[in-house]
Amino acid sequence: GSVWEVVDEHHLEGTYHFEDFRDALEFTYEVGELAEEEWHHPDLHLSWGEVIVEMWTHKIDGLFKTDFIMAARMDRIHEEYAPDE
Amino acid sequence: GSVWEVVDEHHLEGTYHFEDFRDALEFTYEVGELAEEEWHHPDLHLSWGEVIVEMWTHKIDGLFKTDFIMAARMDRIHEEYAPDE
Repeated sequence: GSVWEVVDEHHLEGTYHFEDFRDALEFTYEVGELAEEEWHHPDLHLSWGEVIVEMWTHKIDGLFKTDFIMAARMDRIHEEYAPDE
Repeated sequence: GSVWEVVDEHHLEGTYHFEDFRDALEFTYEVGELAEEEWHHPDLHLSWGEVIVEMWTHKIDGLFKTDFIMAARMDRIHEEYAPDE
């Protein structure tokens, strides 16, 4: 199933799991690079084996299609780190 | 003054500011590399222009000297990003 849920009809929250801190760190960096390319910047909460992403479109203070496109791209990035899922 | 405070006599919380997302991202990555080297892993909350660090020693569920040494090393890393402070 999807890692994403819509919270308060306002933002997307996604929770990704990893084997260790290193993978969570590298994922955070890759997502950060994507955010810079797309100029669409989520909040990223990195801890051991986990990254929680919060994302919305600040200009409209809510969700726009960019958010869902970015979420799908993060899912694809995550696949590199989670071969068993 | 220091960016760090002791919260609930349990963990250190440090708030670092940056000019943009890119600098906050690069700082997060550098601190993550330090965490791997020292095998002491904080939680890192990255958002536009800001990184909040939460850190404690899991083995004793509280603060140990390693936490304060790491905090000082993060301060030094942050100096690279904040030439005006």
